[in-house]
Amino acid sequence: MTIVITAFEQSPDGGKGLARDTRVRWALEEVGLPYEVRLVSLCAMKEAEHLAIHPFGQIPTYEEGDLALFETGAIVFHIAERHAGLLPVDESERARAIMWMFAALSTVEPPILELAHAKLLEGDQPWSRERLPLVRDRVRDRLRQLSARLGEADWLDGAFSAGDLLMVSVLLRLKPSGLLDEFANLAAYAARGEARPAYQRAFAAQLAINAPMP
Amino acid sequence: MTIVITAFEQSPDGGKGLARDTRVRWALEEVGLPYEVRLVSLCAMKEAEHLAIHPFGQIPTYEEGDLALFETGAIVFHIAERHAGLLPVDESERARAIMWMFAALSTVEPPILELAHAKLLEGDQPWSRERLPLVRDRVRDRLRQLSARLGEADWLDGAFSAGDLLMVSVLLRLKPSGLLDEFANLAAYAARGEARPAYQRAFAAQLAINAPMP
Repeated sequence: MTIVITAFEQSPDGGKGLARDTRVRWALEEVGLPYEVRLVSLCAMKEAEHLAIHPFGQIPTYEEGDLALFETGAIVFHIAERHAGLLPVDESERARAIMWMFAALSTVEPPILELAHAKLLEGDQPWSRERLPLVRDRVRDRLRQLSARLGEADWLDGAFSAGDLLMVSVLLRLKPSGLLDEFANLAAYAARGEARPAYQRAFAAQLAINAPMP
Repeated sequence: MTIVITAFEQSPDGGKGLARDTRVRWALEEVGLPYEVRLVSLCAMKEAEHLAIHPFGQIPTYEEGDLALFETGAIVFHIAERHAGLLPVDESERARAIMWMFAALSTVEPPILELAHAKLLEGDQPWSRERLPLVRDRVRDRLRQLSARLGEADWLDGAFSAGDLLMVSVLLRLKPSGLLDEFANLAAYAARGEARPAYQRAFAAQLAINAPMP
């Protein structure tokens, strides 16, 4: 059955890999599944046809026959559960890999999104300059904890898993902020993720649909 | 095998059910599993022994024999996957219930946490009064979308699931803000969750360990 995902017709980041379809593409590439992409404009994303699949008016979505899913974490999990390569077979190891999937999206990413909002949505507000350091410190607190746990390991818990895929994806958002480079082991961890052939293919595919800036 | 979860020795909300152990207790009550609770002080939460189980120094955690998990969503999923009552049997329905679990924690809760931070961490900042309406509007945007999707249904997708358990738990955080009451169907949905006997037992259990304020 053909897998169809959605992606931005024009990615807000111009194809730097931060749009969340990159995460789904990466998962599909890791397990070797072919897929098609339907591009959606920012306008169409808020219209009834797209909202019927994604009630929050975002990308990516995932369609496979009668099944339609939204929410990146759930899509990555759906892929990981059905195809070898993203979740360990051992029951406890599997539970811990799923734990890191949730940790990436609900513990590590929220302060990073707050930082993005502070810049994108409130960058022109009078409080922006004074507030930004506080928001950056909240990100730092999380990174410090994650860095302590990762230590010198290659991946969060044994072999590369869907937990690493999401954690690396979340950390990559921080590259422009300079915060990631404050934690050498996390920067190396994210670079290890980026170096995976599956990530490279996913990145190239999402870049290809985003015309270079003139 | 005995299940042991952790909870606040003294919950910051004084036992109003907002501490995340309530979510795990609720899941355990829904599937009828007995459990024990180990209370952790705010200090102990940041010490090595607890950090070994929960690298981000929070509660709840979940221990069962050799398995130790943190991250509420992952714990609820672990319970739901192994015991009937929280996930549908049909494959597509199951995938959609998991989708709502991720949606609750990574799409709906983050703006609600931003609002909590705006009040708790930045309430005394000079920008607080002017900024708060913006943050409330971001929560409203999400609630509007969720409200449109829920419509007049009892639960998000067919029967009550772990997706509803987490979504209701997330929405309950909004009660003091007045925002939930702006969306009658969401307020009724959250009340339906609270009315479940399993929620009532979970709530009573976490309240019992929090002595009433003198």
